Amino acid sequence: MNIPDDAFYGLLARAVQQRDGETLQRTLYHALRNAILNGQLQPQSRLPGSRTIAQQLLLSRNTINAALDQLATEGYLLRDRLGSQVATLPHSSIAETHAPLAFSLPLHLGELPPATRRDSPVLAFTPGTPAVNYFPLPLWRRLLDRVLREEGSALLGYGDSAGEESLRRAIARHLAISRGIDCDASQVVITEGAREGMNLCTQLLSERGQLAWLEDPGYFGARSAFISAGLTLQGLPVDDEGMYFPASPTSTPRLIFTSPSHQYPLGNLMSAARRLAWLEFARSHDAWIIEDDYDSEFRYSGEPIPAMLGMVPNAPVVYLGTFSKTLFPSLRIGFMVMPKALAKAVQPAIHSLLRGGHRAEQRALAHFIEEGHYARHLASMRRLYRKRQAQLRAALQQELTLPHSISAGEGGMHITVKIAGIDDGKVVDLARQCQLAPAALSHFYLDPSQGETGLVLGYGNTSASRFIAGIRTLNRLIVQTRREQA
Amino acid sequence: MNIPDDAFYGLLARAVQQRDGETLQRTLYHALRNAILNGQLQPQSRLPGSRTIAQQLLLSRNTINAALDQLATEGYLLRDRLGSQVATLPHSSIAETHAPLAFSLPLHLGELPPATRRDSPVLAFTPGTPAVNYFPLPLWRRLLDRVLREEGSALLGYGDSAGEESLRRAIARHLAISRGIDCDASQVVITEGAREGMNLCTQLLSERGQLAWLEDPGYFGARSAFISAGLTLQGLPVDDEGMYFPASPTSTPRLIFTSPSHQYPLGNLMSAARRLAWLEFARSHDAWIIEDDYDSEFRYSGEPIPAMLGMVPNAPVVYLGTFSKTLFPSLRIGFMVMPKALAKAVQPAIHSLLRGGHRAEQRALAHFIEEGHYARHLASMRRLYRKRQAQLRAALQQELTLPHSISAGEGGMHITVKIAGIDDGKVVDLARQCQLAPAALSHFYLDPSQGETGLVLGYGNTSASRFIAGIRTLNRLIVQTRREQA
Repeated sequence: MNIPDDAFYGLLARAVQQRDGETLQRTLYHALRNAILNGQLQPQSRLPGSRTIAQQLLLSRNTINAALDQLATEGYLLRDRLGSQVATLPHSSIAETHAPLAFSLPLHLGELPPATRRDSPVLAFTPGTPAVNYFPLPLWRRLLDRVLREEGSALLGYGDSAGEESLRRAIARHLAISRGIDCDASQVVITEGAREGMNLCTQLLSERGQLAWLEDPGYFGARSAFISAGLTLQGLPVDDEGMYFPASPTSTPRLIFTSPSHQYPLGNLMSAARRLAWLEFARSHDAWIIEDDYDSEFRYSGEPIPAMLGMVPNAPVVYLGTFSKTLFPSLRIGFMVMPKALAKAVQPAIHSLLRGGHRAEQRALAHFIEEGHYARHLASMRRLYRKRQAQLRAALQQELTLPHSISAGEGGMHITVKIAGIDDGKVVDLARQCQLAPAALSHFYLDPSQGETGLVLGYGNTSASRFIAGIRTLNRLIVQTRREQA
Repeated sequence: MNIPDDAFYGLLARAVQQRDGETLQRTLYHALRNAILNGQLQPQSRLPGSRTIAQQLLLSRNTINAALDQLATEGYLLRDRLGSQVATLPHSSIAETHAPLAFSLPLHLGELPPATRRDSPVLAFTPGTPAVNYFPLPLWRRLLDRVLREEGSALLGYGDSAGEESLRRAIARHLAISRGIDCDASQVVITEGAREGMNLCTQLLSERGQLAWLEDPGYFGARSAFISAGLTLQGLPVDDEGMYFPASPTSTPRLIFTSPSHQYPLGNLMSAARRLAWLEFARSHDAWIIEDDYDSEFRYSGEPIPAMLGMVPNAPVVYLGTFSKTLFPSLRIGFMVMPKALAKAVQPAIHSLLRGGHRAEQRALAHFIEEGHYARHLASMRRLYRKRQAQLRAALQQELTLPHSISAGEGGMHITVKIAGIDDGKVVDLARQCQLAPAALSHFYLDPSQGETGLVLGYGNTSASRFIAGIRTLNRLIVQTRREQA
């Protein structure tokens, strides 16, 4: 050895004395490994035999051998019939590697939109969160447990990459009735919420460097997905009839992201004329429309508007739906519906990219839909949200003294209030201190400094009893911010 | 109108007669919408008043008005006090859009490795599938239901993007004991299995066009993730001490993918010297090692080998773990552990890219770990798999008459048998017809035509009673394929 025997045994004896719940074998292993790694024991040093070590430390020889064997397996020691020898390791670097890591992050991370804050419990006016306390949880628990009991371990293995067939069938049937989409299970892919659906669209349909058009203001998730996929972004303006063509398009987009049934966050419904125009444009320019249909089930006047995907046969549209808004967010089940030809063409890629999973939850959800609970829950939430929207409008009329205009559409779970010339980011920051979490309208724009200002007020998970006081507080904060600006 | 009144009412009356479960309102809506879309009703045609239509069809005026209102909301009709007028829609294209879609898929889809077939029920010798029938499902059901009952609707909302804190803490504690990684919950991110972990690594650490090194032969999932992220791939050879440096590296990699504890599929354990060399290389070249630790808990001699991430302080390593192999695949819970500095730097991006979710499952898993069920299940699976590996080795010795060599390592759930000069892809195809699903070794290579040939035999979910007959069948198929080749 390169150190005296005394030092060697001292090192091990100290480790044994100071050991802290570890086994003796593990303690010796660690002490020797550290001594090798930090250079106390030099390469090619020969250690005493296990019998000698055992005698010196008054431990069993088996314990010593187990530790030495483990070190040999991992390559710290070479063992032969003569005993153990320290292996030659690249020592020079060990000291350096203790230094803090220096690294740079990829540039695209800096372009990602800021994350939406997710408070738990949810603060009043948080957009995008449904009334989870109205979800029939006891029924859900029963369905989930029934599936796990009846199907047993068969459900624990890998399933279909595209998701459970029974759920895909149930979704196809539901879409035919409620969204005017004529499709079958083979066109449906279950995703981890709408977000994985977005990522899948970019992977299946676009190549890095291509152009994506998206509503401006619009959904953060589309932006992050496009940025992550290395696409170039161009925002499209939105008016009362929905998103419209840019006056001077720079080049042809590959993907066009829109939420035609209820534009997020402005709430507009895209007109039939504009839908047809977009379908025609996409078809003639080899582009795909990504139709985000996040909350169209909650329409309070007339019936839900049919989806673009079902509007004409062979529409160049990929439809994204989610149960995060209609049931509950932590379920994380969304779906993507493709035209038949596309579904067939990308099937191998789907199998290569996705892994399926969450089979019990997916089966339980299929039962939930097929047994009529889904339609009943939707109807009851529609009533609740319709009432809440009316109550929030009333509260705004009563308490919001500043000039403003309301953009809400006839459905959904949020109202957007445009208030010109305010620092809405600051209002939102102040509001958080009062346990209110509306979103700033300007933040939904690609360039917030050029966007309209105002507040996006979610009422999905906010009891109406909080509306009056909440809006009064927000009104006060806006006035206060304005005064400070002046 | 551009058509006679008779034709107009005839159109509606036929639709009403032929309706098939739809409401009257919906039937009229569809009939009118189709007539507008297919050009029967021309732009700017004025429709009769709702009262007149109602009288003609012998229906209530409310029904007619509801249908006309819906069409007006969607923009097919313009309604004013004079009545309804057909809107001007971009008609020219409608006929064309009936044509089948023509589209091209992005090139990178063609480069994805073929998907692993997932049979249900699982066929004998399928690699990568654990013994799900040994999973304590009744206990799991109890834990899951307890969490849902006790925590209630609080768990239904969005959670922490990085995953439930209680699970991240439980994982950190488990890793400290079993994998020698000293970390806390802030360094752990819960992912949808190891696969989302891979995608997250590419997003957080690399930019399109950069170089990724990966073991060749190696894990399909790493390949797909790198290809999807637009990275350039270079395979690295593997020997008994694990992956080693290429003789002539073309340029510096940004990511280095390895499975050091149990190389997939060859089963080798990477030596300490090589681990340290790789750590040094990564640190001095601003590269990151992605350490895939998919089944290291199943080590049958000695103790599990400490992870590279815990080997030296500030190791430039991102560690990927999964519960797909230790518990069950459809759980889809994996995790990523980062050095502290990296975890802090990427926190905003994590919040922007991930959505959390599956909160009840994550909480139940935290209890499963904390209450000791996880350690007990691991110990019992280790005993089962150790025994199965020995039994499979015995079956191979007895029944595989062809010259072969076994590459398995001292753990895991599969044995790789190298058999030179066979068409292993063909053997695997034939084996499927006999309900056997080993994988072809050559398929794990970036270029299968240059790879070694043989079979990867999973024993995780295959009862030992099937080994003898199964290997005998495979032996026969190999002999048969060889004869046909000759």
